[in-house]
Amino acid sequence: ADEHFTDAREAVGFVRQFHDEQPAAGDPAARIRAVLDEIDRTGTYEHTPAELAYGAKLAWRNAARCIGRLYWRSLVVRDLRHLSSADDIAAECFDHLRTATNGGRIRPVVSVFTPDRPGRPAARIVNQQLVRYAGHPGADGRWIGDPAGAQLAARARDLGWKCGEEPFEVLPLLVQERPGERPEWYELPEDTTLEVRLSHPEHPWFAELGLRWYAVPAISDMTLEIGGVRYPTAPFNGWYMGTEIGARNLADADRYAMLAPVAERLGLDTSSDRTLWRDRALVELNVAVLHSFQEAGVTVADHHTESERFLKHVAQEKRLGRPTPADWSWIVPPVSGGLTPVYHRYYDPVDLAARPAFVAREPW
Amino acid sequence: ADEHFTDAREAVGFVRQFHDEQPAAGDPAARIRAVLDEIDRTGTYEHTPAELAYGAKLAWRNAARCIGRLYWRSLVVRDLRHLSSADDIAAECFDHLRTATNGGRIRPVVSVFTPDRPGRPAARIVNQQLVRYAGHPGADGRWIGDPAGAQLAARARDLGWKCGEEPFEVLPLLVQERPGERPEWYELPEDTTLEVRLSHPEHPWFAELGLRWYAVPAISDMTLEIGGVRYPTAPFNGWYMGTEIGARNLADADRYAMLAPVAERLGLDTSSDRTLWRDRALVELNVAVLHSFQEAGVTVADHHTESERFLKHVAQEKRLGRPTPADWSWIVPPVSGGLTPVYHRYYDPVDLAARPAFVAREPW
Ligand code: HEM
Ligand code: HEM
Repeated sequence: ADEHFTDAREAVGFVRQFHDEQPAAGDPAARIRAVLDEIDRTGTYEHTPAELAYGAKLAWRNAARCIGRLYWRSLVVRDLRHLSSADDIAAECFDHLRTATNGGRIRPVVSVFTPDRPGRPAARIVNQQLVRYAGHPGADGRWIGDPAGAQLAARARDLGWKCGEEPFEVLPLLVQERPGERPEWYELPEDTTLEVRLSHPEHPWFAELGLRWYAVPAISDMTLEIGGVRYPTAPFNGWYMGTEIGARNLADADRYAMLAPVAERLGLDTSSDRTLWRDRALVELNVAVLHSFQEAGVTVADHHTESERFLKHVAQEKRLGRPTPADWSWIVPPVSGGLTPVYHRYYDPVDLAARPAFVAREPW
Repeated sequence: ADEHFTDAREAVGFVRQFHDEQPAAGDPAARIRAVLDEIDRTGTYEHTPAELAYGAKLAWRNAARCIGRLYWRSLVVRDLRHLSSADDIAAECFDHLRTATNGGRIRPVVSVFTPDRPGRPAARIVNQQLVRYAGHPGADGRWIGDPAGAQLAARARDLGWKCGEEPFEVLPLLVQERPGERPEWYELPEDTTLEVRLSHPEHPWFAELGLRWYAVPAISDMTLEIGGVRYPTAPFNGWYMGTEIGARNLADADRYAMLAPVAERLGLDTSSDRTLWRDRALVELNVAVLHSFQEAGVTVADHHTESERFLKHVAQEKRLGRPTPADWSWIVPPVSGGLTPVYHRYYDPVDLAARPAFVAREPW
């Protein structure tokens, strides 16, 4: 039994937890026997739709780095396990984005495609996120776009994609059906990628910076692991916490690096770190992000609100007798950490072996 | 030997490390024999002045929560082991403050008084810091001063101290010679407590808030433990990193809680967390702290500079073949964490058993 593709102990553990937490599912004994029998015969087993849906929610609930877990029960789980071709995956990723976007009222969604099976590893989405911007050195040597999108842009260009010259060029989706094969690439249809142009509530010049960001952060390079079954193609999204855009994507020196340009337009004294010009520019960049998403009617959370929600989640889980392992350094926001209630406490220790979980995808 | 007051293994370990890192001290064998012999005869042993000085520096170097460790070698160690009376301790604490203040060019200093000895526990400073402000509810029920200084203020009043009605009343020093005894209290002489009135480089109204802070943060309630010997009376100080004042002492809701008043004077829209009014007020409060200390000629570090220094320290220690255990959640500043280079990496794991160290003081 040890040589089975799918770990029987993981399978049994998950089925037990599913039945524990979902009493309506009835007695687990029969289901456990069926699962073990299926693993014996085929090396793996198939989740029921209810198991898949609940397993995906548990994976979210177990995400120790995620501050957004209060709403874990509301995850929309799209069961697409019958799909494994690049064309189908791409088409359904686009539908995922439309469903998640929901005209701006972002919905947390996961789309689950065919899992790894004995001798048949699943297809993979090459992109880190379904929507992201390309980056490349321009003709004059200056960087254009998002350095975090440079590798994928280069790869897509090798496959025949034509990259534009603007700083916010949406990357195509690359799907690889099998190890060693050339990925297929697909331009994202217009209606899949809602974007927000950034402006500032007090500084009209801010809009002239020409900044924007997309509405749906959808991670597409993690494996969803449930009861020993690995789903490497399971893109998921929540809504943005503003700091992810304003304090990392647009601020980091190895991303859009906008602090200096913003500080310049703000007229700040940048002669010394002591003037806290970076800190001031950072706050204004984040003000612009929250303001612009709100004006555009696109869901976004500020870090104060999301911190309070998270502590509510911790308290709620505690009442249910469950710990909430959390990774302090990921939970505390990168802006004004000390101002948020999540800063002033410790959390249950992270258990890297906890499952179901979203885990780093292993190379083929 | 196991029943000795001072742990012989700790003693030997420290003497070895001292001789390892200070080759000029010669061969450790003779010294180790002498120390073990002294422990056998007396239950403990006395450090040489060189051992004490180096041990204190190592305790700083080992402080996993301290971002300021680059200058650990420069610590001024005042050897006051011959002093144990309350009067002497108070007088030397005042001299400590004068030496540390140094007209504004703050020097890192530790003053080491008589250690715990078999049957003779050392005296203790009751205060958490040598300088701190009192707090108490005023006549109208509104809070006056620093809530963190409320307990000590109450205790000092019970002993006969008269607390003024201003928000920044420096607490007296309380020294307790023996368990169960009434502490003696000592008003801090004027010339021991340099203070900085806070103003803002751009907002003249800021000075009208009447805020100020003291120049020397001197922790007086931790035990310095070196080679098995415990020095519970060993106050130490560095200089301030601005965020300790601007993002914690003056900002925290359970301290001076100045964010709302500052936001109001800034004219910020406080109707929603989303306007980031707290974050803006926080930055301006910190700008004021750095600006005012600089204008007053008092050493203070901004969190960007202190972060860079810390990474320099980590690199320097690495070249010497030594790890730098660090506690991420204490090292990353509470303002603009994501902007500082210390945010974007992990550190060697903290070893709570590492010695020499400053450790929480045990109750008598
Ligand atoms: C509903 C709104 C959500 C918010 C506001 C939110 C917020 C966050 C934030 C701020 C991070 C840290 C990201 C970083 O620093 O790179 C994070 C990480 C994470 N979140 Fe959430 N999240 C949400 C929904 C979800 C959903 C729906 C899932 C899965 C179903 C999820 C799973 C995760 C995982 C696995 C990580 C860690 C990613 C990694 O290791 O790189 N989150 N989340
Ligand atoms: C020279 C300038 C120094 C700076 C800028 C500095 C900075 C800091 C900061 C920001 C903290 C965290 C404080 C908090 O969040 O409450 C800290 C903690 C600490 N520092 Fe330093 N420090 C300096 C000097 C020193 C010295 C001279 C010593 C000892 C000789 C020392 C030992 C410690 C210890 C033991 C802690 C942990 C305190 C605790 O557990 O509450 N530091 N330091």
